[in-house]
Amino acid sequence: MLQKTLEQIQPISKDWLDKAWKRLDNLTKPRRSLGRLEEMAARIVAIRQEERPEVVKKEVYVFVGDHEVVTEGVSAYPQEVTALMVKNFLAGGAGINVIARCAGARVNIIDIGMKQDLQDADGLIKRNIKRAAGNIARGPAMTREEAEKAIDVGIEMANRAYENGTVMIATGEMGIGNTTPSSALFAALLPAKVIDVTGSGTGLDEEGLRHKVKVIEQALEINRQSLSDPIPILAALGGLEIAAICGLCLGGGARRLIVVVDGFISTAGALVAMRLNPNVRDYLFFSHQSSERGHGAFFRMEGLQPILDLDLRLGEGTGAGLAMQIIENAVRIYNEMATFEEVGIEPGA
Amino acid sequence: MLQKTLEQIQPISKDWLDKAWKRLDNLTKPRRSLGRLEEMAARIVAIRQEERPEVVKKEVYVFVGDHEVVTEGVSAYPQEVTALMVKNFLAGGAGINVIARCAGARVNIIDIGMKQDLQDADGLIKRNIKRAAGNIARGPAMTREEAEKAIDVGIEMANRAYENGTVMIATGEMGIGNTTPSSALFAALLPAKVIDVTGSGTGLDEEGLRHKVKVIEQALEINRQSLSDPIPILAALGGLEIAAICGLCLGGGARRLIVVVDGFISTAGALVAMRLNPNVRDYLFFSHQSSERGHGAFFRMEGLQPILDLDLRLGEGTGAGLAMQIIENAVRIYNEMATFEEVGIEPGA
Repeated sequence: MLQKTLEQIQPISKDWLDKAWKRLDNLTKPRRSLGRLEEMAARIVAIRQEERPEVVKKEVYVFVGDHEVVTEGVSAYPQEVTALMVKNFLAGGAGINVIARCAGARVNIIDIGMKQDLQDADGLIKRNIKRAAGNIARGPAMTREEAEKAIDVGIEMANRAYENGTVMIATGEMGIGNTTPSSALFAALLPAKVIDVTGSGTGLDEEGLRHKVKVIEQALEINRQSLSDPIPILAALGGLEIAAICGLCLGGGARRLIVVVDGFISTAGALVAMRLNPNVRDYLFFSHQSSERGHGAFFRMEGLQPILDLDLRLGEGTGAGLAMQIIENAVRIYNEMATFEEVGIEPGA
Repeated sequence: MLQKTLEQIQPISKDWLDKAWKRLDNLTKPRRSLGRLEEMAARIVAIRQEERPEVVKKEVYVFVGDHEVVTEGVSAYPQEVTALMVKNFLAGGAGINVIARCAGARVNIIDIGMKQDLQDADGLIKRNIKRAAGNIARGPAMTREEAEKAIDVGIEMANRAYENGTVMIATGEMGIGNTTPSSALFAALLPAKVIDVTGSGTGLDEEGLRHKVKVIEQALEINRQSLSDPIPILAALGGLEIAAICGLCLGGGARRLIVVVDGFISTAGALVAMRLNPNVRDYLFFSHQSSERGHGAFFRMEGLQPILDLDLRLGEGTGAGLAMQIIENAVRIYNEMATFEEVGIEPGA
């Protein structure tokens, strides 16, 4: 599934992009005065290849996985919180539930690597591959096979969205300890120094942060034989939810969906996808710059710009849910604004 | 009306702010992990003094005025465009109409200083005080009396919103040439050098920009006798729509409304309001940093932070309409998220 998906991801259409800019420059506003909204709209027209792209159906995919690296003391919360938060998601009381309601998006929760086996519930999709990623400070997070299976689940979800008629999908995640593997992935894939891509996660103090940096350095050292190609790197340092996010990005690109990437952890998954096929970048909308240290390094090094910068560091897809709303404004601007001709104004500057 | 309004604006309640933070810190997320959304929510609780503030009714007030300073060649568009764009607003085809529909906000268009007398139309509020502000490069924009009348119209609109049951109002404006008086106001009120607060407006080239700077310097020189207090400064250098925006901010503060300030020109109006009564700042939400040069100087010098930064420079209230949507997410987060107690998680970090 992965290989086929990678082959399907094409760069967006230059012709449709030109067509979109022609219309944008003829809408009743000074040229390019809606700035980045116009850039988003143009890209979406070229992704969707439609005269008037609609973004009615929206979904958030929240992948959940645990991480044995928490035994190294890298998180401010105990591992049991992962399952408790999933129950909160299913009951509609978490941050992502509220923001998704504002965005008019459906929330899907996928158990991809939770330690605890939850009962069936409406809105819960069970695709558990492994009951927690291994402790990366002592060995690999997953086997290559497990990583590929997790990527496939992400691709499956993008296909599911496509078949549902959903055109805009957002990535989300939950997993106590998952900023640690994300920082390790940024260090290996950007590449960057561990200290430059490691932050305090859900709330470590200065000493906790220093310890976390050491744990990540140890993870890079112990897994050094695997740090050549994207998939072995993901398997060694990542997590199941991160692999699934990588798959969601790839599947979204293959299906020509608008893929809204959440914060620090989701970006780590997106970065793996970008390393597997750089074309996928055309389909990704990076929702926000997290207050987690290291996210900024990603944007600088990749020459990308986030849509929002609101000091968020919750994850779950919350930043992506906010950005979906801004993106919807951009698309509606494109579809609904009058042209100069329609109102009898000379285009001017 | 102005004096009474100024006296009514109180700082927001410290008790309600503490109460809001107590709830925010007990919602199911790491402490402060929703960053600036939490700050907005806390401030809104303190503004509204309600356990669960609602932001159901929203309105945008777009004040329209012309500027004789366009005869100096400071704008890329001819003055007739003001009236054509108002027709576009009334027909629902402008940027602000689309974004307000996304935000679920009603748009009101107020003729406060248009050159052309328009026919009555649904959605058009006629409060014309003067058929265009005077050429500030040759003398004052308005008399003190005209400026106060225009402020009163803004206050009247805030009162109208209050009586409608509207809790969140946004400022907007249209008026060919109105970045020039706005830059002049920033120069006089921040204070700052003209060159540091003057940009290319709707699309001047480098030479046009140099000329605009000279025109503004001339305006400051010719009106120098009036540049002591905020109202005389506003009358000398401003415009009718800018004065009305000042009034809307003040009236919003007096009525404890959430006031969302649009871009460069709206901020000039808000700055006059802040100079008349610094307490009003507690009620203002600066929606975005415009790509117009000089807007950044305002934020730095006043120690304020915009919500969005999307290279917008359209005006009309478009940035405010986008920010309204983010603010609504913040309020709903406050109202709808579950607490740690409700889901059985220890608060942690």
